[in-house]
Amino acid sequence: VPSQNLRIPGPTPLPDAIREAGTRQMVNHRGPEFKKLLYRLSRDLRTPFGTDGEILILTASGTGGLEAAIVTFLSPGDHVLSVSIGVFGDRLASIATTYGADVVKPAIEWGSAADPDLVRDEIRAMAAASGAPKAVLLTFNETSTGVTNPIADLVAVVHEEAPDALLIVDAISGLGALPFDMEDWGLDVVVTGSQKSWMIPPGLAMVAVSDRAWAAAEQATMPRFYFDLVRHRESLAKGQTPWTPALGLCFQLDVALELIAAEGYERIFARHAACGAATRAGLAALGFDLFADSAHASNTVTSARMPADVEWSPFSAALRERGLVLAGGQGALSGRIFRMGHLGHVKVDDIVAALAVLEDVSPSLGIPIETGVAEAAARKAAERVVGTSSQLSAMAASA
Amino acid sequence: VPSQNLRIPGPTPLPDAIREAGTRQMVNHRGPEFKKLLYRLSRDLRTPFGTDGEILILTASGTGGLEAAIVTFLSPGDHVLSVSIGVFGDRLASIATTYGADVVKPAIEWGSAADPDLVRDEIRAMAAASGAPKAVLLTFNETSTGVTNPIADLVAVVHEEAPDALLIVDAISGLGALPFDMEDWGLDVVVTGSQKSWMIPPGLAMVAVSDRAWAAAEQATMPRFYFDLVRHRESLAKGQTPWTPALGLCFQLDVALELIAAEGYERIFARHAACGAATRAGLAALGFDLFADSAHASNTVTSARMPADVEWSPFSAALRERGLVLAGGQGALSGRIFRMGHLGHVKVDDIVAALAVLEDVSPSLGIPIETGVAEAAARKAAERVVGTSSQLSAMAASA
Repeated sequence: VPSQNLRIPGPTPLPDAIREAGTRQMVNHRGPEFKKLLYRLSRDLRTPFGTDGEILILTASGTGGLEAAIVTFLSPGDHVLSVSIGVFGDRLASIATTYGADVVKPAIEWGSAADPDLVRDEIRAMAAASGAPKAVLLTFNETSTGVTNPIADLVAVVHEEAPDALLIVDAISGLGALPFDMEDWGLDVVVTGSQKSWMIPPGLAMVAVSDRAWAAAEQATMPRFYFDLVRHRESLAKGQTPWTPALGLCFQLDVALELIAAEGYERIFARHAACGAATRAGLAALGFDLFADSAHASNTVTSARMPADVEWSPFSAALRERGLVLAGGQGALSGRIFRMGHLGHVKVDDIVAALAVLEDVSPSLGIPIETGVAEAAARKAAERVVGTSSQLSAMAASA
Repeated sequence: VPSQNLRIPGPTPLPDAIREAGTRQMVNHRGPEFKKLLYRLSRDLRTPFGTDGEILILTASGTGGLEAAIVTFLSPGDHVLSVSIGVFGDRLASIATTYGADVVKPAIEWGSAADPDLVRDEIRAMAAASGAPKAVLLTFNETSTGVTNPIADLVAVVHEEAPDALLIVDAISGLGALPFDMEDWGLDVVVTGSQKSWMIPPGLAMVAVSDRAWAAAEQATMPRFYFDLVRHRESLAKGQTPWTPALGLCFQLDVALELIAAEGYERIFARHAACGAATRAGLAALGFDLFADSAHASNTVTSARMPADVEWSPFSAALRERGLVLAGGQGALSGRIFRMGHLGHVKVDDIVAALAVLEDVSPSLGIPIETGVAEAAARKAAERVVGTSSQLSAMAASA
């Protein structure tokens, strides 16, 4: 495989030190080396989640973490409000429905964030009809549309209107790249996945749980085994996981958390903000029509409408020929949008390189494009976010 | 971590080529490179399973594969016969119970294999009481006790007595290391795990499914989402997995299957038989009391009783000081046995090295030991299995 500019919203490219960690020899997962490693991972992940509680590490992709977040805390028949703004919000709702929850899912236009007033109205309607929701399902950053929800505002409404409702949050593609504070916001269950801001391959889901969610788990009756977080918590107390963990990924996560600590979360958040701004400005300068509501555009993934009369498949293949790998639309957005990921191991130069390929290739696909302006627009937007270009260079160099 | 002789029944040590594959850069898991890889893996795994059907690759440890084997094919209330001979047989039964199956689990002494006559009696008793079982749960190789079941004999009885029962088989710690033939034996669902004979880190479960099990899946009503094998099959038809796969492990499995093809399954089976024989003969020569029924002792893991008045914890720590990592007993066998793994990337020299450490360290722990005989006993037993010492050397060299 020649070198690619892998600009999908996960898996993200791996830094060299994380690739090197992929060569580590195995150890006993019930022995002292793994115990130390697991405690270190669980401790160091507290900062990005914003919690003092344990972080549980599951061998599964992010969807498995979402299933754990449902089956450990809910019971069949529970009234649940799903605030879905895209494919992954719908997936979380589907998991709850599969296990017998009674899910209310208001329609929200894809490309938009959720409106706190809509959440208020839905909770009041549920309370009037069948009782307040037992849980509210939220998406922090909707990967399929490129929208980041105003999570603090949404949560504030839930705390007012349904103070007992558990707040279950899919933070898979945002946590670690965007400011987040589980305890300050009062969230109960938060899930992320290894192949996103963590810069390692897919295969681990990391989950944090509030005290009141642990209390709810005692009453919850959905069937659970592999994804039973209570078992994971009990095993963690012994420095283990209930089932054999993906050891190689744990070694890589360990190195990732060292790289992250060296850069610092504030700088990481600024780098993502700069890359997000650069992507949006650059695509707009080329003439692409951004899909997500600009007030809530994500700094980890950007969506844009497919140009008129252009099919995703030849568009994607032509870019891939030049080493640029983008993501297409999912579900109802299939063929209607394309997405450029900018999370994890990414710097503004990667965005500029991607824009250059788009600029070069688009004319041959019949896409009318504005030439000679994208790079400057992207760099300017990034600099505006960061403040000065010297800070940005330092950040790019450290990435 | 200094170099260890990791002699636990998985994860197994990684060959250098597989460690190197751990450095591979990420690709798009919805793109053409992964599609080719997934088809190649699914095709090349058919041989060790003994099937012409698709092999599904799940991002989970083996236990997740077992959960998939239950929830995809069964319904709450189904009568199920669990033929459990240890911790992992009990786990498979627990998963079925968790999801609402009505599980009959006859007591079988740990250390023994299952007796075909017992299976016959149990099926007849179930048929008389509540109808023939909908499924029979079997363990190919019970990792917790070091016993390999006479699976063909057990299955023959099920085919006679309950021809419609689905045969769901945990083959996690045996498949790929021991002869196996899913279609010849008439099995319906077979599960293995990446960190066993496959010589790669934990995190993938591989599952094969018969046509009649696929038909059963259409009627099955246990709730399923992440572990829904029907979704996995539908995605495989497009060269994808339904959820983001553990890409790094897929790259490593690809290299593992190349190494395995180069060695050949017949030679791999002989190498495991030689290592099993060497381990049993060497431990017996030292004076340890083998735990498993000798007629059914496993060629991937050997169990022996802990010497009288010796605790597992100091025993394990003293061996670890010398670089030898063994596994303890699990569940009711905790503190009563120790286990030495010999599967995957292992050769007779590794067994001899482990025996030498046991011989050196045991006296200081107050374990009465026969000195100066273990290596010769181990090598002789291995040679007896293989036939001639030159074949064995060639085998050891290629491992």
